[in-house]
Amino acid sequence: MADPTTTPPDEHLRHLLGEISELLGKQKLEEAILHQQAMPHHDLVETLLHKQHQVALKHKLDGLHSADIAYILEALPLQDRLVVWNLVGSDQDGQILLDVSDAVRETLISDMDAKELLSATEQLDTDEIADLAPDLPEEVMQELLESLNDQGRQRLQSLLSHEEDTVAALMDFGMVTIREDVTLGVVLRYLRRRGELPEHTDKLFVVDENNVLKGVLSLKRLVTHNPDKPVAEVMAKDVVYFHLDDAADQAARAFERYDLLSAPVVDRDHQLQGRIGVDAIVDYIRQASDEERLAEAGLMEEEDIFSGVWKSARNRWFWLAINLVTAFLSTRVIGMFEDTIVRVVALASLMPIVAGIGGNTGNQTSMLIVRSLALGLINPGNVWRLTLKELGIGLLNGTVWGSVLGLLAYGLYHDMHLGIVMAGATLLNLLVAAIMGLAVPLGRHRLGLDPAVGTSVLLTAMTDGMGFFIFLGLATVFLP
Amino acid sequence: MADPTTTPPDEHLRHLLGEISELLGKQKLEEAILHQQAMPHHDLVETLLHKQHQVALKHKLDGLHSADIAYILEALPLQDRLVVWNLVGSDQDGQILLDVSDAVRETLISDMDAKELLSATEQLDTDEIADLAPDLPEEVMQELLESLNDQGRQRLQSLLSHEEDTVAALMDFGMVTIREDVTLGVVLRYLRRRGELPEHTDKLFVVDENNVLKGVLSLKRLVTHNPDKPVAEVMAKDVVYFHLDDAADQAARAFERYDLLSAPVVDRDHQLQGRIGVDAIVDYIRQASDEERLAEAGLMEEEDIFSGVWKSARNRWFWLAINLVTAFLSTRVIGMFEDTIVRVVALASLMPIVAGIGGNTGNQTSMLIVRSLALGLINPGNVWRLTLKELGIGLLNGTVWGSVLGLLAYGLYHDMHLGIVMAGATLLNLLVAAIMGLAVPLGRHRLGLDPAVGTSVLLTAMTDGMGFFIFLGLATVFLP
Repeated sequence: MADPTTTPPDEHLRHLLGEISELLGKQKLEEAILHQQAMPHHDLVETLLHKQHQVALKHKLDGLHSADIAYILEALPLQDRLVVWNLVGSDQDGQILLDVSDAVRETLISDMDAKELLSATEQLDTDEIADLAPDLPEEVMQELLESLNDQGRQRLQSLLSHEEDTVAALMDFGMVTIREDVTLGVVLRYLRRRGELPEHTDKLFVVDENNVLKGVLSLKRLVTHNPDKPVAEVMAKDVVYFHLDDAADQAARAFERYDLLSAPVVDRDHQLQGRIGVDAIVDYIRQASDEERLAEAGLMEEEDIFSGVWKSARNRWFWLAINLVTAFLSTRVIGMFEDTIVRVVALASLMPIVAGIGGNTGNQTSMLIVRSLALGLINPGNVWRLTLKELGIGLLNGTVWGSVLGLLAYGLYHDMHLGIVMAGATLLNLLVAAIMGLAVPLGRHRLGLDPAVGTSVLLTAMTDGMGFFIFLGLATVFLP
Repeated sequence: MADPTTTPPDEHLRHLLGEISELLGKQKLEEAILHQQAMPHHDLVETLLHKQHQVALKHKLDGLHSADIAYILEALPLQDRLVVWNLVGSDQDGQILLDVSDAVRETLISDMDAKELLSATEQLDTDEIADLAPDLPEEVMQELLESLNDQGRQRLQSLLSHEEDTVAALMDFGMVTIREDVTLGVVLRYLRRRGELPEHTDKLFVVDENNVLKGVLSLKRLVTHNPDKPVAEVMAKDVVYFHLDDAADQAARAFERYDLLSAPVVDRDHQLQGRIGVDAIVDYIRQASDEERLAEAGLMEEEDIFSGVWKSARNRWFWLAINLVTAFLSTRVIGMFEDTIVRVVALASLMPIVAGIGGNTGNQTSMLIVRSLALGLINPGNVWRLTLKELGIGLLNGTVWGSVLGLLAYGLYHDMHLGIVMAGATLLNLLVAAIMGLAVPLGRHRLGLDPAVGTSVLLTAMTDGMGFFIFLGLATVFLP
């Protein structure tokens, strides 16, 4: 794999993307002109021109880091993307498939036949094959499994047997093990004989003859200590380690908290199974936060910006449909009070404000709760105190903003009663919003569901419905 | 600093937090009982009990990693937090101040006098002092600057002179430099004589006599190559480096893309100024995504879950106020059509659906655009194609959901015209939402503003206003 570029990466890449887009555009334009002109030797000229552009394109791509090619593929529309994809050297195919997003990976894989897929994936490490596995056709997976040796097959099957959000999914096998009774000098000679170390090696793992983890020896300590000392004396014995089925987000928090670069993964018998590198953690953090935000906005899965209209529309339907159902329920609440609205039509214009301010403050509360849950800051001992605090804020906000809105309603319609109803409804709905903003994420958390996903939709449904009900109900009772 | 715990970190910490909370609770309870009973030697017994609890607490805290103490401080209400804080050994104070969130840091610093702050911060590295600088009182900063040597003072002032979101803010000075004409053996002897390397050292920086960066020598290469070889032959010359004023998010993307562990930072003359470690990048990614989500939910800044009611309420007012202004404008749109609503009261219950579905789809579009902008996937060449795609989705969704809603309205009110108005308004508002979902983030991006922040509020304001206007306008024109 080529080394990354030496200029500041982003500008350089944007520039390159521009040049490649231009080349692709020129190629299409010239082909179109040739077709129109129907000149003699048309085919020959087209082939020649085509070749020339291909060479120019290939020249641009040569020596690029696989992550840079992945970026370029992401930014190109489907047709252009496949032109570039077919020009990429097959030795980089596997790595690029790992680097692109799920949506783009699908488009690339559907352009490859079984043989191409096999040759692309055969060069990958076991843990990388496991990452691609969900997207590979059954037959390719079968052949891959057969091509592996016993250890590789066993490792791959073990990885595939674990849940997606566990430490096993982040693990790789790029670890070098040593024994504790040798000296640092022996370790150094062993490493020199061994040559190239796995990517991102920052420490060696010390195990006994049963592969049980005894400690770790960082390269830092290896190079700063006297080569005559035994490993046992220099290694760290107090190490953060993980089990195969620990939650991935707990591992990510531990990496953040203790500034780890890598950590060993062990099984129930404390035998070394693999390692997690901080590179996998960085990808995990970014992906988890991306997925959560997409889900909050109502997207089912990652969407390639050039996905087809039909595919993109379906991706968005699930949450749209849920939203329509909840909106329909609010509608029925309003429907109950149609008589009152005919009597005081001002209610129709004011009611969205009451509902809206409830949704807004409820979302503020729930966002803090979701975040505190993720950080593990909420426990049975402090829920009560939190509830009091949020109710206090609701009371304060309700008094302040309720007064403002009440005065506004009075100013607009010169109706004292209407102003009082507006103020009272705002206050009550803000208290409802505070309780719901706490109850929805805490309830989902207690049920073992992700507190972030869907909370906003559920919450808005409740604050809308309750907002309309409280406001119109108060109006029905108190307005003359 | 103590090594992190050896049990899986999260469970262990939660357990510890429970024990500490219990101890604090017991202490308070016993003090309260003593006060009530007014028994003889009351003060003496209280002092003894207090001492006993303090010792038990201190015992729990001893040997904890600073990040673990930071976690415990975050999870405790203000009063308990300060009790624990005063028990922490002063040698850990500085590191803990770095590890806690901004909101909690404020509460801890306001509990310390200038002398305590000075002794806590004096042990920190220059880059760490720079991170704390915004929260430190002027006088403490002055004394700190005076206590530094020339190099330290110069570095600190240089760091403080750069913007918050630049590479300079992520940089540290924990780098070891070597020359390219010595052999690896000489380097190894130098490192052994030097002893302890800076935290997270994974590579050495090769510079010439003017401190100009020539390349990097990873510890991996150092330990796997023949010690007789010169550095120049083994070092990597093609390295990713950054300039002091490069944007922090570009650096983060480069770390993700190329799986870096650390990278050098240079000035305009290519002289080595510092390094960025992946630990700073991990913190940056988490913090940036947290801040964005808090802002989206309408919170001005990070809020400690135990902040006072008054402080928390003010934190949430800015976006609430903006939301109220936009809601008020929607109200005025509805107010324009009050005559129509009195005529056909069903409009009042149906209008929130049209507005709501517009906001929902608009947010889906804008979320994808915000994300694609962050990834650098949008350029002038593909904006047009994206617009066509989103309009296509709007047309498809508008037809499908417009028909559904039209039939629903017809079914509820048995009014064919009302059904047609509902269907038409839904279709039109989904097209408006698609255009706004593109235009708002792209517009903010072109103006150099963060496309993520405030987009949702602006967008919802437009889809609400337009939704009401289109629906009630069509109804006014077409309903008998």
